[in-house]
Amino acid sequence: MLADPQTVERIVELVTRHVLLALSEAGQSASAPLDAGCTQECGAGYCIRHCSEKVELVVQAGADRLAAGPGAVPARAELAKLIDHTLLKPDATADQIAQLCYEARKYGFATVCINPAHVPLAAQLLRSSGVGVCTVVGFPLGATPPEVKAYEAQVALDQGATEIDMVVNIGALKSRDFEMVARDIRAVVRVCHAHTPAALVKVIIEAALLTDEEKIAACLLAKESGADYVKTSTGFAAGGATVADVALMRRTVGPRMGVKAAGGVRTRDEAEAMVQAGATRLGASAGVKIVQDPPLAPAAQPAAGSPTPPRGGQY
Amino acid sequence: MLADPQTVERIVELVTRHVLLALSEAGQSASAPLDAGCTQECGAGYCIRHCSEKVELVVQAGADRLAAGPGAVPARAELAKLIDHTLLKPDATADQIAQLCYEARKYGFATVCINPAHVPLAAQLLRSSGVGVCTVVGFPLGATPPEVKAYEAQVALDQGATEIDMVVNIGALKSRDFEMVARDIRAVVRVCHAHTPAALVKVIIEAALLTDEEKIAACLLAKESGADYVKTSTGFAAGGATVADVALMRRTVGPRMGVKAAGGVRTRDEAEAMVQAGATRLGASAGVKIVQDPPLAPAAQPAAGSPTPPRGGQY
Repeated sequence: MLADPQTVERIVELVTRHVLLALSEAGQSASAPLDAGCTQECGAGYCIRHCSEKVELVVQAGADRLAAGPGAVPARAELAKLIDHTLLKPDATADQIAQLCYEARKYGFATVCINPAHVPLAAQLLRSSGVGVCTVVGFPLGATPPEVKAYEAQVALDQGATEIDMVVNIGALKSRDFEMVARDIRAVVRVCHAHTPAALVKVIIEAALLTDEEKIAACLLAKESGADYVKTSTGFAAGGATVADVALMRRTVGPRMGVKAAGGVRTRDEAEAMVQAGATRLGASAGVKIVQDPPLAPAAQPAAGSPTPPRGGQY
Repeated sequence: MLADPQTVERIVELVTRHVLLALSEAGQSASAPLDAGCTQECGAGYCIRHCSEKVELVVQAGADRLAAGPGAVPARAELAKLIDHTLLKPDATADQIAQLCYEARKYGFATVCINPAHVPLAAQLLRSSGVGVCTVVGFPLGATPPEVKAYEAQVALDQGATEIDMVVNIGALKSRDFEMVARDIRAVVRVCHAHTPAALVKVIIEAALLTDEEKIAACLLAKESGADYVKTSTGFAAGGATVADVALMRRTVGPRMGVKAAGGVRTRDEAEAMVQAGATRLGASAGVKIVQDPPLAPAAQPAAGSPTPPRGGQY
């Protein structure tokens, strides 16, 4: 008798999780040539750019390295390195977190961004992978006291987190209690920078709830308090990242501080627009789709004999 | 030159806050006879039931006690005693919290339910008022570790909170890691019940994200772990309290444990339906409207000579 599809899916997920764990302990990873699934319709080496669905079949079969022509992989990898692969839903299960970690290794994302309760599992699954573990503090309302945010960050760091995205005290900002806003940020920065190795701190300003004046104040307070990044949004408010907000935040903090665009970034075009506006990190639950979306034009000429011309538009 | 309306409003709010603070320190409160604003159109003593808008003018003018005929005030007060007057928006300002506390005193709500960052202010404003200070922990996602929830509760209690509404670890529940769910609840219960005086613990199960089986499991784990209440919702998920969920939760926990219906309770009728289904506490941001809504029929006959008959329907 065949097992029902749900049972099969669960067994596959569990096996995946155990294999990942074993690999992380051995420091190994699987690899496969792209040729294995390529029909050569679009010219050798450019499948990853023009036939992303077919490429995905190869990836889903287990490959985590893909051979491709010049100009194809780098474009994808550059974006992947900027992405915090994000799953912050309150009902996320351990299996879904394991899947997220699996994808983050496969695509080379900067980090996985997850709730604090999942940090121990993610840290275990991503050991020696080069993928960081980013978690959130005072999330998503930002309305907890400084000592609670600092403790929450400390526990997460002790459990393996490498980056902390904290939510600013939005009510204090609205009440113009700037000293409280700064004290709150400093409490988390102190814990993160005292940790060995030091952890990055990103300050979520929740731009959708703020006036431009408040966005500027929040960014300046974050910079003055020693944070490493400012971040647009939690993804739980009415609005997410906008190009205008990213540009405003970049202008406010200057060229050296990080700016993370998060919330509603779902396509490669949107991701590219955020980077153009000044973002140096992207938070997205659609990271896999973003890196698989074909760019508007290739960065290099296709190989001779390719039957498919590059798609038009600016890149 | 006249000040602009926003400035006037802000001055009024600030003055209100300072007066409230002075009153809380002196243990006094203002009082006014309802006659002050009653036009007697609906019969002496029944304005509170039939002319709620006019009554509200009196209340807004500063009265916090109202004279009224039998059957009018008790109906309102009974509901008020069940309500946690709630403001959990991330951008709530200190002035809005002060207004919430002012209303809670005026209407005799059970507590104000606020984010942890506002506990010190609310505790100060509600001193000696008989209104409790309820705050939230692991809110609204529930995805922080037990030690962080316990610490967050401890800090809130030290700052004056009297009740803690904690969010269950929803992901652990979905992963059927029941030991983690129970450990998480026990960590908060331990801190709250060890406090002097002991604080109530309500466990928010976020019913909208759960199957009926998961709702039952969450309720049983909350009961087994020593919590005082189960609570339907955070108000931040896609759905809030339903009569069916309240009835299911009441059946599951039995007659002695508390059940709090929260999220989307906006009218007196909805509030009454929740109580009928088994709720012993209501979380609502519309508490003032709920107690001002006229009931479907009075609990006692109007006084002789009243020109306005009671409205039809069941009460």
